[in-house]
Amino acid sequence: MIGPATYFRPEHRPALDDRTRSLIDRREAVLSPGYRLFYAHPVEFVRGSGTKLYTRDGEEFLDVYNNVPAVGHAHPRVAAAIAEQAARLNTHTRYLDESLIDYAERLIGAFPPALDTLTLVCTGSEANDLALRVATHATGARGVIVTENAYHGVTTAIAAISPSLGGDDSLAAWVRTVRPPLGDGTAMVADAERAIAELQAAGHGVAALIVDTAFASDGFIAPSPATRAALAAVAAAVRAAGGLVIADEVQPGFGRLGATVDDPGLWGFLRHGLDPDLVTIGKPMANGHPVAGLVARRPLMAEFGASVRYFNTFAGTPVSVAAARATWEVLHDERLPENAAAVGAELLAMLGELQARHARLRGARGAGLYLGVDVVDPATGLPDTEAAVALVSGLRERRILISASGRDNAALKIRPPLPFSRADAERFVTELDGALRDLGS
Amino acid sequence: MIGPATYFRPEHRPALDDRTRSLIDRREAVLSPGYRLFYAHPVEFVRGSGTKLYTRDGEEFLDVYNNVPAVGHAHPRVAAAIAEQAARLNTHTRYLDESLIDYAERLIGAFPPALDTLTLVCTGSEANDLALRVATHATGARGVIVTENAYHGVTTAIAAISPSLGGDDSLAAWVRTVRPPLGDGTAMVADAERAIAELQAAGHGVAALIVDTAFASDGFIAPSPATRAALAAVAAAVRAAGGLVIADEVQPGFGRLGATVDDPGLWGFLRHGLDPDLVTIGKPMANGHPVAGLVARRPLMAEFGASVRYFNTFAGTPVSVAAARATWEVLHDERLPENAAAVGAELLAMLGELQARHARLRGARGAGLYLGVDVVDPATGLPDTEAAVALVSGLRERRILISASGRDNAALKIRPPLPFSRADAERFVTELDGALRDLGS
Repeated sequence: MIGPATYFRPEHRPALDDRTRSLIDRREAVLSPGYRLFYAHPVEFVRGSGTKLYTRDGEEFLDVYNNVPAVGHAHPRVAAAIAEQAARLNTHTRYLDESLIDYAERLIGAFPPALDTLTLVCTGSEANDLALRVATHATGARGVIVTENAYHGVTTAIAAISPSLGGDDSLAAWVRTVRPPLGDGTAMVADAERAIAELQAAGHGVAALIVDTAFASDGFIAPSPATRAALAAVAAAVRAAGGLVIADEVQPGFGRLGATVDDPGLWGFLRHGLDPDLVTIGKPMANGHPVAGLVARRPLMAEFGASVRYFNTFAGTPVSVAAARATWEVLHDERLPENAAAVGAELLAMLGELQARHARLRGARGAGLYLGVDVVDPATGLPDTEAAVALVSGLRERRILISASGRDNAALKIRPPLPFSRADAERFVTELDGALRDLGS
Repeated sequence: MIGPATYFRPEHRPALDDRTRSLIDRREAVLSPGYRLFYAHPVEFVRGSGTKLYTRDGEEFLDVYNNVPAVGHAHPRVAAAIAEQAARLNTHTRYLDESLIDYAERLIGAFPPALDTLTLVCTGSEANDLALRVATHATGARGVIVTENAYHGVTTAIAAISPSLGGDDSLAAWVRTVRPPLGDGTAMVADAERAIAELQAAGHGVAALIVDTAFASDGFIAPSPATRAALAAVAAAVRAAGGLVIADEVQPGFGRLGATVDDPGLWGFLRHGLDPDLVTIGKPMANGHPVAGLVARRPLMAEFGASVRYFNTFAGTPVSVAAARATWEVLHDERLPENAAAVGAELLAMLGELQARHARLRGARGAGLYLGVDVVDPATGLPDTEAAVALVSGLRERRILISASGRDNAALKIRPPLPFSRADAERFVTELDGALRDLGS
């Protein structure tokens, strides 16, 4: 028996089977020591389909963790599109390619009219890095306002505005943090006013406010009248100070927060009533193929493009576009945002029932298939990181993939591929119930 | 007839055929204004194979420009590997995946023993950005030394060390430029000593020297005893100042500079006798699939990994690894680095003959299939940008893809896919001869 852990550590090695131990030894000999493996007992998958992943021995795992393969693991239409295009042609955006244009037209058509230009990049980090370059260029300022536990990526410039990566010490001098729009949202507004004043006093000025519109690392904040009011007030203050508003849709975008036939909006900023100048998109955009992008108001990109040369070799290539186009088509044809809304609501209700029976769970929340639930100490009601890690490990042994997240690493993060079914939701809740019982709660 | 231009501009529009004009109109309506198209008369390709690209009308172009599809356009083995894996599984590096380990073992085996760890990323920009983060972290300094017309990428941090993007004004305060190792190399050494002194005096310290080992944007400098001596002296001075040495192999790496059976080294730094601490790789690594990497000394990455969380969602995924592995296998099985050495030498000799007959060409140089030749004013011998652009345009009409490069945009940059044959070289030189005659030279 291997004890619970979010990541593999050397002390877990003796309990491993020979193959796993051998793979880990080989891996550690050639990969950077920075690489980490999930679980004290790492898993090796060889096949995926829909919401399921399969090991070499044929064990089936239910995936409640992976948001990147949004239309389902190894979706045959996406795989076929990639295969067909890779066998035919892959160049770059300096030659004409109708498929790129066609994809951009469809994507831009899903945004408000003012957000009318697309720039493709390869990763969410590149998208946020470019958005910040554009904002800095347009405003002549460099101050950035982020939420207090935000994560926006790993380039030098973006790690320096991502407090979740390493606390305030690692933030650039021109970054200020604000509380997310919790409660009545007034705390965020007050923090933003203070941040703006500080940035101006320090001579940095205000280049941008950037928010993950799911507020995932800040604890999952679902849209509400309060978030609308708070974000509108903060955006107005930022704009009054000369700054721009960047919506980071890398995680919430492409329908994860759910959509209805009447309201098919694919983006978190729409649900919070935010009116951004720049929107970054990524993770689920091509179901795992490295595709991300920046959707922006034309005047900003015209001014940037007139004085800055930006060319991204691997971005917008025919194979990448084929992957993104097929993903887009499947998302719509299979009505996955609508499924996210329907199954997400059912799952949220099931979690509500479960937390009524288990004092260890509290605060089930979220939207669509992007949900969170806190794991707490039943005696104190405080976040219980140890119990959350034990639940993640217990669920791994029950063949459910999930992770813990949030400031205390004590919230279960629920963000499965979007074809997640009601049966999947029931299986997950049954196993979570079992894992809670195993914990003695 | 459309006049010569490196990039399409609005004034070229009237001369276009209806389809091209319509595609450009649609493209400009949805893509960022920063996007550019090659040529006054842009091209649209629908198929590629080996060193050839084909238009919708079946016109065949010889590709002397594209270094990314290094093992040939739409190589069937690479396409099949991508197709097979995309249909089976694509996850991330936090689960075990033997194919990732297997690829990393092969790749690391092609480096000197001290360069013993791999970190995969998605683009060359991300690789250089990470290398600089690691160097800054390891040294506690932030000063960077680059060659005077260097290009290393487009993230915020890397654009700020890339003088070729926009002149010294756009460089960060902690960047100093040095001349490349031309002539006897003493200028580079003197510049580096000055740069180190300045960085230390300004309180920046020296984090790193970073060099593209083909010195492509600095005019293509082939390895020689002088480059070895200069680079060794500069590296020693940088290390004495506490800095690290980064070799940017994004363009020269994976055998483009040629290799022999006796000396199969795939990296430019080996040819210049450089002993780097960090090596970045990219463009040809997976034949166009977005894969890049950082190869580094283990202690650097252990220290970085112990205090910095770095996870790149799309990097090292099974499909990306399948593309990189197949590319690696084809590169070796088809002996493409050896072909680069053999055909490159023949092509360099042909260019020498051509410049003996055309006073507009001068200074044919380079290594393997990474060659350059200057286009000059025959009267003055000075770089002639206009003539270079006219040659690029003339060659486009002759169905040869090539570009102009260098500080004056007056050097023809020759870097075809590596299966480039002797017949391809002859076809290119014949058409270049014709384009020169069309110019009246």
